[in-house]
Amino acid sequence: MESKSPARPRTVGRGPKVRAAVHAATLAELLDKGYAGLTVEAVAQRAGVHKTTVYRRWQDREALVVDALSEHFAADIPTPDTGSIESDLRLLTQGLVDSMTGPIGQAVQVAMYSDAGRLPEIAAARRRVFADRFRRAEPVVSRAIERGELPHGTDPTQVFTTLAAPIHFRLLVTGEPVDEATADQAIRVTLAAARAGALAVVHGAEPAEPQRNPLE
Amino acid sequence: MESKSPARPRTVGRGPKVRAAVHAATLAELLDKGYAGLTVEAVAQRAGVHKTTVYRRWQDREALVVDALSEHFAADIPTPDTGSIESDLRLLTQGLVDSMTGPIGQAVQVAMYSDAGRLPEIAAARRRVFADRFRRAEPVVSRAIERGELPHGTDPTQVFTTLAAPIHFRLLVTGEPVDEATADQAIRVTLAAARAGALAVVHGAEPAEPQRNPLE
Repeated sequence: MESKSPARPRTVGRGPKVRAAVHAATLAELLDKGYAGLTVEAVAQRAGVHKTTVYRRWQDREALVVDALSEHFAADIPTPDTGSIESDLRLLTQGLVDSMTGPIGQAVQVAMYSDAGRLPEIAAARRRVFADRFRRAEPVVSRAIERGELPHGTDPTQVFTTLAAPIHFRLLVTGEPVDEATADQAIRVTLAAARAGALAVVHGAEPAEPQRNPLE
Repeated sequence: MESKSPARPRTVGRGPKVRAAVHAATLAELLDKGYAGLTVEAVAQRAGVHKTTVYRRWQDREALVVDALSEHFAADIPTPDTGSIESDLRLLTQGLVDSMTGPIGQAVQVAMYSDAGRLPEIAAARRRVFADRFRRAEPVVSRAIERGELPHGTDPTQVFTTLAAPIHFRLLVTGEPVDEATADQAIRVTLAAARAGALAVVHGAEPAEPQRNPLE
């Protein structure tokens, strides 16, 4: 990502420092070359450590990628309760956008959906994070219904999906930047749709049963 | 995808038949193992041809993947003009959903955004398809504005993005099935947001400049 890594490994110290350097190098290599092109050798060189140092701590490149991605993908978005649906959605969206901002956030997010996302541990981490995000949206929506800001029957899953979909679309499909304007627009669309009753629980719809993700 | 490929290659004939068999095998291998795990050997075995037969026609696995994906990703969605925005959007969405339906459609779509999507030819094919889809949405929106169905200033790009985002979200992020209910819900949300003026051209927003896609 930045300058070329030196031909001869630099010394980066021991323990947590090595761990951080190897994690950063793994993410940078994932962003540059994808999971298909990632090698432990290139990670070691970029991190400035010997290959054997990497293999002493991580069994193989899978373990390395799982460790590096899981650490950075873990979400810590509190459930907002500001008294207004608009500012609650703003905080929820901000948490999502923040996790995709900057080269590391972007690399982690993209890698979670690339070939690296086929690793069972990565797929499990992705499921955990999304279950957690849907769960956090529930009280936000039920409180808005109580306050009369959203119609009865508004579905928290639909609300969160409508909020998250355009943000992921930019990140994964069009490659446009994910920024504050993206967040504003997602909130505007979600609120308009919810107020019009378009995000109500759909009766007769199939239950949203978890299916085999073709990426896994 | 279907039964195990036989240990000994079967004869699949020459010319177009070989081409079709190798394409199908390439997509099946992409779905099963991802681009990182795809080998010409496995493709040949699954297609029932000798490895040399594959190499005679395709230089390497990249050429093979580009050829197989490009052929199936090419969109042929006509611009609808039914006289109503709702049925026009339905036809646009149906074209999008159809391209993602069935194991082949799903494999092609997922592969376009996986590590195989990093290949410059695949990235270029993806850009062409999306430019084409955005272009087709333009007259649909301008005619709806003329008929008074949508507010003045409604942005065709916003309309198509709001329509396509939840469909791609299911395909790429949650792995839930993309079906008619998905299409119905995307149309409902898009129309509600457009009618409420939430899909208007945003003044003062950054121009939607094409940026480096982190997947490329």
